[in-house]
Amino acid sequence: MRNVGVLGYGMVPVGEHWGQSALELAGAAVQAARIDAGVERIDLLVVANMLAACGSHGQLNLGAQIADWSGLRGIEAFKAESACASGGSAFRCAWLAVASGQVDLALVVGVEKMTETLVPEVTLGLASAADADYEIPHGPSFVALNALIMQRYMHEYGWKHEDFAPFSIVAHENASRNPYARLQDRISPEAYRKARMICDPINLLDASPIGDGAAALVLAPLDRYPPRSGRAPLRVAGCASSTDSLAIHDRRQPLRLQAAEESSARAYAMAGIGPKDVDFFELHDAFSIMSALSLEASGFAAPGQGPRLALDGELQADGRLPIATHGGLKARGHPVGATGVYQIVEVVRQLWGEAGRNQLRRAHTGMAQNIGGSGATIVTTLLQTQN
Amino acid sequence: MRNVGVLGYGMVPVGEHWGQSALELAGAAVQAARIDAGVERIDLLVVANMLAACGSHGQLNLGAQIADWSGLRGIEAFKAESACASGGSAFRCAWLAVASGQVDLALVVGVEKMTETLVPEVTLGLASAADADYEIPHGPSFVALNALIMQRYMHEYGWKHEDFAPFSIVAHENASRNPYARLQDRISPEAYRKARMICDPINLLDASPIGDGAAALVLAPLDRYPPRSGRAPLRVAGCASSTDSLAIHDRRQPLRLQAAEESSARAYAMAGIGPKDVDFFELHDAFSIMSALSLEASGFAAPGQGPRLALDGELQADGRLPIATHGGLKARGHPVGATGVYQIVEVVRQLWGEAGRNQLRRAHTGMAQNIGGSGATIVTTLLQTQN
Repeated sequence: MRNVGVLGYGMVPVGEHWGQSALELAGAAVQAARIDAGVERIDLLVVANMLAACGSHGQLNLGAQIADWSGLRGIEAFKAESACASGGSAFRCAWLAVASGQVDLALVVGVEKMTETLVPEVTLGLASAADADYEIPHGPSFVALNALIMQRYMHEYGWKHEDFAPFSIVAHENASRNPYARLQDRISPEAYRKARMICDPINLLDASPIGDGAAALVLAPLDRYPPRSGRAPLRVAGCASSTDSLAIHDRRQPLRLQAAEESSARAYAMAGIGPKDVDFFELHDAFSIMSALSLEASGFAAPGQGPRLALDGELQADGRLPIATHGGLKARGHPVGATGVYQIVEVVRQLWGEAGRNQLRRAHTGMAQNIGGSGATIVTTLLQTQN
Repeated sequence: MRNVGVLGYGMVPVGEHWGQSALELAGAAVQAARIDAGVERIDLLVVANMLAACGSHGQLNLGAQIADWSGLRGIEAFKAESACASGGSAFRCAWLAVASGQVDLALVVGVEKMTETLVPEVTLGLASAADADYEIPHGPSFVALNALIMQRYMHEYGWKHEDFAPFSIVAHENASRNPYARLQDRISPEAYRKARMICDPINLLDASPIGDGAAALVLAPLDRYPPRSGRAPLRVAGCASSTDSLAIHDRRQPLRLQAAEESSARAYAMAGIGPKDVDFFELHDAFSIMSALSLEASGFAAPGQGPRLALDGELQADGRLPIATHGGLKARGHPVGATGVYQIVEVVRQLWGEAGRNQLRRAHTGMAQNIGGSGATIVTTLLQTQN
């Protein structure tokens, strides 16, 4: 297996891009990544997308379409989908293709266009990440499923709603310094406490905003394509994906992200490191409860103790394990199928010292974790600089 | 890169499975393939599917769901999609994962459930393989787009409609001996000529029937997992995927399948063989015109001369290049996202001498070609027995 490195990245700000189609957003990210990587040629394009197939303006075959639009007509292309973990799954496909030796230059682009779709269609589309036979017919939206988990978690472990505040406050703080973020305003504990209730106990500031966006990465064999001058070689040290049941009621332990436990354990083993070696963590804070569960499953906190890390200030930029360093899903925004690629782009920016005002002092090993459904597909990726 | 072999396969008959969900169909194929391969363990499940995301009962995250349903909860899983070439793309993902050394036992399952979806939804879903911005708004269905190609082809090269008859007659002849086929009746030249017109010049017997179905394959490193006693080692000798524009009007030569030319040339190069070394060809005869274009693009006939091979009887079971040896899309049926996997299963059955009454006398090198859209994504796969 070849060592695979990141060669470049590109993205568009997450927001409401009324004037741009999914194709235009994806094309902009693809071109930015090629320019950043300094390569014209691309051998394989893997597209991550969740919702373009749904709704009245359905578009399948996005791989070929985005390749053509980006001036790459002819190359291999396809879409990988695992709901909101599509970005992580697509990244893993691209990584394996380069690792195998079959492909030299792989480009993964995550794209989602949500603001032009009618709200009921988006809600239905997002719900299709859950079990369409045994969960959705009972009426819950995707927010409601997460609310059930959060309610139970608070009951089991005795946390109050306000104990989750730091997750959102930290994310907004970091997003306020990220021009690519959807919500660039800071929030106060009081604002969090008073935010409009969406689905008890999830209020508006526990939930990430959807949005339009596209992010892209170029992968290549590390020995044949060194990064451009001034950038450290950046290796994919570990990348693993695991699954669980779609339906929450089918899980053995609904308050544990089994697929995160397994994928992080395998990613650590590949990289030969453990949680203590991770400098920062781009986690999947679609809802604040998911931040807690993700930290626990990945070995950063004991079961039920995720909020403790947040309350102790350890997740802030100057803490022991900074999270959501560009704003996370909560404030950078959650263009669902693209999110997993944004996360890895953000890890790369930290590792290359290109995170602007969000730059961490110590950034040698970064981790991204991308969740599809309420925990059904989870991809954990570890990147490391080599000096 | 490791040598990858096929270890086993499984499938359900293509048909109208009113009593079974996509999950049940996929699960049946997965279990059959695991039993056939003689392995309990699976490391990676790649799902090929096109339409489950669409319509009112949308289901994304199929990878995790099918893994769980099949008793494989926890393993890595995701969906690959490139419209009707999803099966080929998923196979290539699984192949690269095993070739890389990261994964030992990969299972690819193609599944499609179409008969419980309302006809207008299926028509819209199929159309989403074409360009949703520049083709579909003008009104054509997917049949109509193929009819435009066929009309132009007949005009350019002077063929009459009846010259395409042998493609369909051969497919139905072979399907009559395949218990897994959707249409097991033979058809006569007269029936072909008199068939109901669907979209001039495509009549009912030029078009493949949709259907429900699922097919699966287990891949593994050839040196570590030899096939069971009595079966020859079966190697993936070449597998390549190429793309073209989604919209037909954007192509430089609308009567040439550029992506088939490129992917077959690359697959031949990987295998170190040429068209003359191919013993039989599972082509993508969604419409009879596609058979002609596929034969030409893959080096079996000069441009415009595909129907000549058919008229000369060279594509029959006893001809120089048997095609659609189990009935092809035309008569075995076309459960869109699953089709590419059925094609490769059929190649495997021939190579292992397990094709029953359709068994060819010479089957050492078999080729499958899977087309997504009207030629936008094309995956060509070559399998060879090793003795």
